[in-house]
Amino acid sequence: MELTMTAPQLSAFLAREFPQVADDFVIEEVSEQRLTVRLKVEERHLRPGGTVSGPSIFALADVAIYLAVLARVGPKALAVTTNCAIDFMRKPAAGADLIAEARMLKLGRVLAVGDVLIRSEGVEAPVARASLTYSIPPDKA
Amino acid sequence: MELTMTAPQLSAFLAREFPQVADDFVIEEVSEQRLTVRLKVEERHLRPGGTVSGPSIFALADVAIYLAVLARVGPKALAVTTNCAIDFMRKPAAGADLIAEARMLKLGRVLAVGDVLIRSEGVEAPVARASLTYSIPPDKA
Amino acid sequence: MELTMTAPQLSAFLAREFPQVADDFVIEEVSEQRLTVRLKVEERHLRPGGTVSGPSIFALADVAIYLAVLARVGPKALAVTTNCAIDFMRKPAAGADLIAEARMLKLGRVLAVGDVLIRSEGVEAPVARASLTYSIPPDKA
Amino acid sequence: MELTMTAPQLSAFLAREFPQVADDFVIEEVSEQRLTVRLKVEERHLRPGGTVSGPSIFALADVAIYLAVLARVGPKALAVTTNCAIDFMRKPAAGADLIAEARMLKLGRVLAVGDVLIRSEGVEAPVARASLTYSIPPDKA
Repeated sequence: MELTMTAPQLSAFLAREFPQVADDFVIEEVSEQRLTVRLKVEERHLRPGGTVSGPSIFALADVAIYLAVLARVGPKALAVTTNCAIDFMRKPAAGADLIAEARMLKLGRVLAVGDVLIRSEGVEAPVARASLTYSIPPDKA
Repeated sequence: MELTMTAPQLSAFLAREFPQVADDFVIEEVSEQRLTVRLKVEERHLRPGGTVSGPSIFALADVAIYLAVLARVGPKALAVTTNCAIDFMRKPAAGADLIAEARMLKLGRVLAVGDVLIRSEGVEAPVARASLTYSIPPDKA
Repeated sequence: MELTMTAPQLSAFLAREFPQVADDFVIEEVSEQRLTVRLKVEERHLRPGGTVSGPSIFALADVAIYLAVLARVGPKALAVTTNCAIDFMRKPAAGADLIAEARMLKLGRVLAVGDVLIRSEGVEAPVARASLTYSIPPDKA
Repeated sequence: MELTMTAPQLSAFLAREFPQVADDFVIEEVSEQRLTVRLKVEERHLRPGGTVSGPSIFALADVAIYLAVLARVGPKALAVTTNCAIDFMRKPAAGADLIAEARMLKLGRVLAVGDVLIRSEGVEAPVARASLTYSIPPDKA
């Protein structure tokens, strides 16, 4: 599970392959233990009452594990989510970004599994947790 | 589990409470057995290669069960998703809307559980399945 | 997704490969649409108060999808569960067997996905629902 | 989320309320950060080939979160699992006990959420991970 991509390389990859969403996210830390991503919360992520929408929280969890997989297997745009289980536990704090902390639990030949805790910046109690499985495309060489 | 809201009532509620996303969805059928919602797929829902994004599929699953709950308990904007398990099984067909078919499995005093199958319009094999739990706020009276 | 094993063939396979648990289950129906399995509830499946234990309900869901996979891919004892999401929705009826109704949603080259509804015999409202993913071992030939 | 029960108190509770399974488990550590439970693997937990069965791993995850909830809310036998998402990631090591490390992520008025990592004793790479939701019965007083 050694790293093969750095935070700047992952950011560049995201910007090139997923231009629609890359601006939403800032990759804050990439290490063997942990990958940290920030969702820069904007008006478009909110629901009435100022809470971040479920799909935006899902998107953050999804991108965090995706990047943790890529950091290890290299830039394979075609890795796809096959499964996600997510618990929404608390309302996000108003006016705060969301911070996702992901860890890889398994990196197999065809499947990768990771989990992620999502918090409002500056708040310890988590907003959500999620576990995701990614299917890794075979190398075509 | 009798119905207390019709499809037009649910549509009006969605437009009033969730104006940011209400235009994405068309409620096609509401019955005791089934609630059917269409995601009108637009450029903003797509990923490179023309496939519908994971967060857009999640959003469709989430709104389908939310509406199935509201159809029974009435217009309570504050029902919140507490859990979702989703399997992404096939790439959506290019250029086709997604159709979600939801059913309620449990409607308790505090928790509601439903599941949903999502297909590309005109294709039998499902794109995704999801099960969701909603927490229902107590009546304040 | 054509069937390659019948109910008696599946029962014989279960008895041979999983003798510890085969007696717990009766395969009641195998068709392309549905596989039905009964858990013959005995003292050892119960918790105080007479309710069927969570692990017993999980085991029933697991075996139902496993058999639905085998019915299609043939007798591969090594197919393994990679993921399960299960909702426990109601207390099982006292003194009643549990009936699981499974359907296959995807049968890919490496992953199979199915879901299952579990009811107390003679009761319409479901006790539990589950979705499971199985990893299918490659043919060694 | 302060603790109200110690490891010996939890063990005594388990032995009294769940005599059928209490002998399978040893509560090794209870702290605010973490609850650790051992599954003493016996013949009856195994599948052909010597691997621990899925239902046994599920039972371990379930009891670990259950005990983590009880350690905080006190001895309420009626807390029930409402949801579990579990990933089976690696084959357990032959001849080794399984060790579950659980943490509480949310302890609300009606719902508690925790997650758990399960490893073969002495092996770092996890066998399984699970997240569970428990419904907490209201106090009758």
